[in-house]
Amino acid sequence: MAQLRIALAQTNPAVGDLAANTDKLIEWTRRATGRGAHLVVFTEMFLTGYPAEDLVLRNSFVEASIAAAEAAAGRLAEAGLGETPVVVGYVDRARLAPRVGQPKGAPLDAAALLHRGRVAVKTAKHHLPNYGVFDEYRYFVRGDRLPIFRLHGVDVAVAVCEDLWQDGGPVAVAAEAGAGLLVVPNASPYEREKDDVRLALVSRRAREAGCALAYANQVGGQDELVFDGDSIIVSASGELVARAAQFTEELLVADLELPEASPGGPGTFEVDAGDGTVITVERVELSARPLEPYEPEPPVIAAHLDDTAEVYSALVLAVRDYVAKNGFQSVILGLSGGIDSALTATIASDAIGPERVHAVLMPSVYSSEHSLADAQELVNRQGINAQIVPIADIVTSFEKDIHLTGLAAENLQARVRGMILMGLSNQHGHLVLTTGNKSELATGYSTLYGDSAGGFAPIKDVLKTLVWKLARWRNAQVGLSSPFLRGFPRPPIPENSIEKEPSAELRPDQRDTDSLPAYDVLDRLLDDYVEKDMGSAELIAAGHDPALVARVIRLVDLAEYKRRQYPPGPKITPKNFGRDRRLPITNRWRETTP
Amino acid sequence: MAQLRIALAQTNPAVGDLAANTDKLIEWTRRATGRGAHLVVFTEMFLTGYPAEDLVLRNSFVEASIAAAEAAAGRLAEAGLGETPVVVGYVDRARLAPRVGQPKGAPLDAAALLHRGRVAVKTAKHHLPNYGVFDEYRYFVRGDRLPIFRLHGVDVAVAVCEDLWQDGGPVAVAAEAGAGLLVVPNASPYEREKDDVRLALVSRRAREAGCALAYANQVGGQDELVFDGDSIIVSASGELVARAAQFTEELLVADLELPEASPGGPGTFEVDAGDGTVITVERVELSARPLEPYEPEPPVIAAHLDDTAEVYSALVLAVRDYVAKNGFQSVILGLSGGIDSALTATIASDAIGPERVHAVLMPSVYSSEHSLADAQELVNRQGINAQIVPIADIVTSFEKDIHLTGLAAENLQARVRGMILMGLSNQHGHLVLTTGNKSELATGYSTLYGDSAGGFAPIKDVLKTLVWKLARWRNAQVGLSSPFLRGFPRPPIPENSIEKEPSAELRPDQRDTDSLPAYDVLDRLLDDYVEKDMGSAELIAAGHDPALVARVIRLVDLAEYKRRQYPPGPKITPKNFGRDRRLPITNRWRETTP
Repeated sequence: MAQLRIALAQTNPAVGDLAANTDKLIEWTRRATGRGAHLVVFTEMFLTGYPAEDLVLRNSFVEASIAAAEAAAGRLAEAGLGETPVVVGYVDRARLAPRVGQPKGAPLDAAALLHRGRVAVKTAKHHLPNYGVFDEYRYFVRGDRLPIFRLHGVDVAVAVCEDLWQDGGPVAVAAEAGAGLLVVPNASPYEREKDDVRLALVSRRAREAGCALAYANQVGGQDELVFDGDSIIVSASGELVARAAQFTEELLVADLELPEASPGGPGTFEVDAGDGTVITVERVELSARPLEPYEPEPPVIAAHLDDTAEVYSALVLAVRDYVAKNGFQSVILGLSGGIDSALTATIASDAIGPERVHAVLMPSVYSSEHSLADAQELVNRQGINAQIVPIADIVTSFEKDIHLTGLAAENLQARVRGMILMGLSNQHGHLVLTTGNKSELATGYSTLYGDSAGGFAPIKDVLKTLVWKLARWRNAQVGLSSPFLRGFPRPPIPENSIEKEPSAELRPDQRDTDSLPAYDVLDRLLDDYVEKDMGSAELIAAGHDPALVARVIRLVDLAEYKRRQYPPGPKITPKNFGRDRRLPITNRWRETTP
Repeated sequence: MAQLRIALAQTNPAVGDLAANTDKLIEWTRRATGRGAHLVVFTEMFLTGYPAEDLVLRNSFVEASIAAAEAAAGRLAEAGLGETPVVVGYVDRARLAPRVGQPKGAPLDAAALLHRGRVAVKTAKHHLPNYGVFDEYRYFVRGDRLPIFRLHGVDVAVAVCEDLWQDGGPVAVAAEAGAGLLVVPNASPYEREKDDVRLALVSRRAREAGCALAYANQVGGQDELVFDGDSIIVSASGELVARAAQFTEELLVADLELPEASPGGPGTFEVDAGDGTVITVERVELSARPLEPYEPEPPVIAAHLDDTAEVYSALVLAVRDYVAKNGFQSVILGLSGGIDSALTATIASDAIGPERVHAVLMPSVYSSEHSLADAQELVNRQGINAQIVPIADIVTSFEKDIHLTGLAAENLQARVRGMILMGLSNQHGHLVLTTGNKSELATGYSTLYGDSAGGFAPIKDVLKTLVWKLARWRNAQVGLSSPFLRGFPRPPIPENSIEKEPSAELRPDQRDTDSLPAYDVLDRLLDDYVEKDMGSAELIAAGHDPALVARVIRLVDLAEYKRRQYPPGPKITPKNFGRDRRLPITNRWRETTP
């Protein structure tokens, strides 16, 4: 057996900022070598950030990425770090003749091994995901090389992210080639309970590859995606050896006992990948002899967060990164006294600090007394900035010129509020946060250009029942302080905002239950229809009330259009609205009348 | 040689309305048999409409589509039309074991041959496009069968749309199998000058297949896509035999002289498709003996529209279908007296009739006298509905409560106008049309929730220089009447709206040229940057002013976010905003500072 100390750099890159990402590569490699690491593994497309979407189709961007990988190798050597091999993801291109339907310039979701001032060997993702949030057939051509580099007597293979999720391909070839360790840069977005799926998958693939597997995952918010880290190292038998924390940057260092490589020099050979393709294995040698035996450090295995803490952390990180990475200093939101805006304000306080959160209280003639009082109570408990702007006069000035009744009049109130927030945003540079939850967005209880006006929607993918659960959970953490929790001395959310009956307060004595079923009934139905894509007959067979099925499906299908114009927000389920569900606007399919 | 009269049904299906599409199938087949056709070919996914997007991932939808194809065969037979074979596109599914990354349920972009009350044979698209507006790896698995049916002694092969655009696959196999005619259902969206590309492509593929080729294309607006029809039939040598008109439904009937099939019965055999795959040819026999010789009808070759007429027709059709297919009866828009809203109103009048167009004139304190006069002149010339709602008092009522200056104050005016239009839309059910052009959207000269508020953006993909060109062209057609031109007695657009200097009129004496270069300079640069994806260095090398390149690129990249929240609009270039350009919002890549 041979020893190796491996460091996984679970980091938060900035999409498009190749210079900053390169600086971070140098800094984290220095930290890793300072801890005695023999090999450092960064995440998928770390130098460019992931996902870079259509930037990848721009020539100048791909050339800059290739140049950045080469420059990074040089800078590592200049910094005296050239002896430690570094695996890092970036975008490269295949040398293929242009073909109809192939992405322009044939980009690759690549990984490079940087060593002694140069790119020693390269690989690229073989399995391209093109489902859910992934569009990779649009962006990349398939990689067909598996590099295996010998480091201190251990044969180390490199695969990329999706290569773990599909059968055949690099994992099968790594087994065939007798690799002693498989390292995998990833950018695998968070979804509720994905951490359990991920460990089971990585364990299974390690057993298939017949070798230890090191899985380095990106962390951070990137538009609607939240990357949760949760990097892991498992043994060849699939046992968990080390794990990094969720939602935070971490350098995960672990000592591994690995099989010594059999003799055999560099070269290339082809292997049937078991998926209808052939992969070329490329062997290179960095150092043939095992290290002198040394005392291993005890491994770190971070505990998993429970489901509620996990979701809350994802939302906080998403807001923090959306604000910072887009160059905002502060946020503004409307605070109604209800639970949705209360939770959103609390997430914002936890994300960027209450001193950078600005609330506007915009009572109308239909607002209850408790609304303003509950909103002010939250302002006091959290110490956020607040101002009151009553909307009655502005609404009246519109109604003098145009006659509006019913829904049109309700929407007008919501739009006046949206305009006030946007005006203050434009004047002072705050990012407007919207406060709609997934249950109301799904059913269309939201006003286009009204409460949906804004730049980021923190609870867009949170069903109403989960809104309440998160609020209660957050209040129960009172006094605790963490990267995701501000140490407020009192529960940050007024109990009355949690307990009172929900109402939009757009007409006298309005209640959500006037027009919607109880939220526990509605949310179960939405989950089956939106997440599980069940049809009408299946929903009824699953026990949902037929009349409710018909009504809710109609609401959801008709709300699709509004959703398209809703701002992005963090994703915690497989099917948030927006890029996850692509339905035609002009469409006469009705699930209820097939 | 053998004769065959073929009818291509160039039709406008409704996405999701399987019942209406089936009714249309029966009706058009009756018309075709009435004209003596021996074979009728409908378009790609005609029964479901194209594109159905994520509906295809819903089990109930795919099952309904399969049932619709079978039911259609039965209904044709009941209607006495069962003897005439009908090729029609729909969605089927492959019987494949579920696999990670494969679309749920393995849907196929299929075509069925309906004959004597049953589905006689099926095929499915082999080449799946996944670029530009196409996401087909998300939706479909690849078809691997090429049916060849013998009809009156002629061997007819069936391929689907993209199969023509890529090398290898069904075209190569049709040649190998000795087909006498290749029929191809399509849903190929319009882009400027695509008609010329299409004819050249179809001619080349006919020569490769060594047989005549009949190309039936969808027509109609579907969200951002406009299908232009332009169905064509070419001979085995690639000569144009018949062509349908652009942008209108048409039954294209043509008599063909085709080679008689060599003897040989039904059965299947495998052919190397020349693209790394194997395709199974499936031969079936409907009727072995050639028809008795008959006198052919003279073929129809519709003339192509010139480029300006083509774009104008596309915009009119897009608006008409968006309105009708989404169930609206009327549209509303703000009329400023400027050229953008004047052209948009004219397109709307041509699309749905001036009696269903509602204009709101919303002068502010910064509006010039000529603005209101020019707008009223257009109202008079076209006879559209109009009302005047001055915005000064409403703006003042906002400014009493919140202090706004500069851009924030300019945006407020645009938003007050947006709210007035949305209020009237909610009250009366009109669809709001926005009036922004591509040059100003690209550079961010547009207010989120202001002039960008609305449901459809007719000139979203039209650069400002083309706006002027279309306006002059439309005025020059005065007196003409066609499906795309209302026979107005006077030029519908006031000359002053065309000739005056453009201004947003959001502050005193504002001119577009205060902040933007001349539009001919800007539009050339936008075309190179947006459509051609040139990087900064390339743009400068192409002769654009370096300072302007830096400034315009910055504007375009920063405007990306607004564009995401802009309503859909018809697409006339490869890269309209929205689904055609998918850029991260959170992104620090700046083309100007690589």
